[in-house]
Amino acid sequence: MIDTFYTLELDKPDGRRLTLYSRTAIDHVASAPSPFAEPANANPHLRWHPLRGEWITYAAFRQNRTFQPPPQYNPLAVTTDPAAPTELPAGNYEIAVFDNRFPSLALDAHNPPELTVETAPATGKCEVVVFTQDPTSALGALSLGRIALLFQVWGDRTERLASTGKIKYVLPFENRGVEVGVTLHHPHGQIYAYPFIPPVPARMLSQERDYFMKHGRALLPDMVQSELDAGVRVIYRGPHACAFVPACARYPYEVWVTPIAHVPDFASLDDEQRADLALALKTVLAKYENLWQRPFPYLMAWYQAPTDGEPHPYTQLHAQFSPPYRTRDRLKYLAGTELGAGMFAMDALPEEKAADLQAVEVTVKD
Amino acid sequence: MIDTFYTLELDKPDGRRLTLYSRTAIDHVASAPSPFAEPANANPHLRWHPLRGEWITYAAFRQNRTFQPPPQYNPLAVTTDPAAPTELPAGNYEIAVFDNRFPSLALDAHNPPELTVETAPATGKCEVVVFTQDPTSALGALSLGRIALLFQVWGDRTERLASTGKIKYVLPFENRGVEVGVTLHHPHGQIYAYPFIPPVPARMLSQERDYFMKHGRALLPDMVQSELDAGVRVIYRGPHACAFVPACARYPYEVWVTPIAHVPDFASLDDEQRADLALALKTVLAKYENLWQRPFPYLMAWYQAPTDGEPHPYTQLHAQFSPPYRTRDRLKYLAGTELGAGMFAMDALPEEKAADLQAVEVTVKD
Repeated sequence: MIDTFYTLELDKPDGRRLTLYSRTAIDHVASAPSPFAEPANANPHLRWHPLRGEWITYAAFRQNRTFQPPPQYNPLAVTTDPAAPTELPAGNYEIAVFDNRFPSLALDAHNPPELTVETAPATGKCEVVVFTQDPTSALGALSLGRIALLFQVWGDRTERLASTGKIKYVLPFENRGVEVGVTLHHPHGQIYAYPFIPPVPARMLSQERDYFMKHGRALLPDMVQSELDAGVRVIYRGPHACAFVPACARYPYEVWVTPIAHVPDFASLDDEQRADLALALKTVLAKYENLWQRPFPYLMAWYQAPTDGEPHPYTQLHAQFSPPYRTRDRLKYLAGTELGAGMFAMDALPEEKAADLQAVEVTVKD
Repeated sequence: MIDTFYTLELDKPDGRRLTLYSRTAIDHVASAPSPFAEPANANPHLRWHPLRGEWITYAAFRQNRTFQPPPQYNPLAVTTDPAAPTELPAGNYEIAVFDNRFPSLALDAHNPPELTVETAPATGKCEVVVFTQDPTSALGALSLGRIALLFQVWGDRTERLASTGKIKYVLPFENRGVEVGVTLHHPHGQIYAYPFIPPVPARMLSQERDYFMKHGRALLPDMVQSELDAGVRVIYRGPHACAFVPACARYPYEVWVTPIAHVPDFASLDDEQRADLALALKTVLAKYENLWQRPFPYLMAWYQAPTDGEPHPYTQLHAQFSPPYRTRDRLKYLAGTELGAGMFAMDALPEEKAADLQAVEVTVKD
């Protein structure tokens, strides 16, 4: 049996799509608002970086995007005054997904400029995922049921984006905190859907494939098992999911969250795995929040199998958290060796940071 | 003929090495001071990241390193009070290089811990390069002769580090500004000497090798020629060196500085190339500084041929600047797509940012 969820699809007046999700039927939504009346006409393009061998996307119109608006105007809040429409309607739904008004990738991108380097349309999609109607909440404050629904939403988005036939990789992530450049504080994440497998997942998939060829097993579940056996860096251990500071952490409070069994993507989670993965995630977020008794900023990226139509027995669904702080008062800056050379240098041992998080007592019930 | 420079090597009381450089004979230096009496005993180690397929270095003792000390104590200033020794002696020298007290890599690293991932000694070297005795100056405020000397110092360090037989890649860089985490404001850079070719240069070298195999020419000089022909993104064009915003810039004010002819490393520069490269670099720095009439933060990384004993006809000496600001008031944050996926998303077109820099009028004479 798979937990049921309901969806409602609506079109915004500027042509963008809005999809609402809930565990109960959605029956009180009139129409989809938009702060913008005109169509967006986003037309981002890719440029090839010959030295790095990678694509960069350019969307010059994004410079004027909404940036820390005054509290009285929150584009992710539910519209209450029809004269000041936001991105979301009132109604009995739990999670909302809509097309980013300022996308770095767009399905109808076309006619890239001719330049001294190779160019291409920046085909793809950028979506905003609003976790709750409560602007003062946070991902870690949501119920376990809501977090499990979010996993289903991410799975549903992945399948819908894959069905366009133009998407090879779907990355759900959340940037949280001004320290990582967040422009809106209402609890939300983003989804980037790429027309190729981007460099970081491509590198991980290549490593995972090599390991699978050599050992006949998936790499990450083996890493998980050795972390669970070692025990020293484990943050949460449940029947179906776990969280740990990896021995090879690149950020001081880096944590990975993953199912224990081999699960390639969100859509492959069964109800029990999904529920325990929600508990693992919520436990990590509660520990982060209580570590310094203040909101804890992070980048949370969820990796899963590509949507390229190939089988992926070697890869594993998991989240990687990259928090920007190395101590309560000091940020970890990416500088010479990290950005210039690609070798991360760590001041803190993962074992010490894991002990810090282990020492934070939290009770996660619902 | 090669411009002459003088060196003086000294040992610090804590066992670290200090080398002084000048274009005139150095004859007024008594001994090398150190703020620390005890040997450093740095013993960093590497851990293998199985998913990313890369090494991360761990040096836990670095957490207590000097961090924005009060203005009355500057460890990079010349020692004036023997009771408060700094890193540098008084004397008639121009540039100083010494072993970092808190290195992420050390030539005598040994006995790495046994863990759930592969480990290794973090063999290598981290050096500090002090550009001037004037704590209030800046790289861009130095004379062209001093900047040319700095190129010779970087070349000399590269050859000395290579001669240990343990170093495969030498990266000189400067992190400038609190925005990129700089702990000391006295004009200085760093050198990281790696026991392997780290991921970013490795990727670039691989791309350059592929291009050379296909076209029989080096990639970057060909890119330079097409940028000079196009003209729109050129910031400086001299007889032997140039600077431009690359068409594939990943940062809004990214600039590359390079000789025009094929030159694989600092040691291969002739006097005329070195002088013009100094003028190119100083012009870029002057434009940065005058753009917003305030100190302009950046990461400056200098890429050159590996020190692995192989010939490198395909690679090119050049600097890449990665400034953190996207406009006067807004930082570019690396978040979901950049750090999580490795695909950079740019709000600004390189052509617009190049025009901003082109419009800054500067006169660089000496």
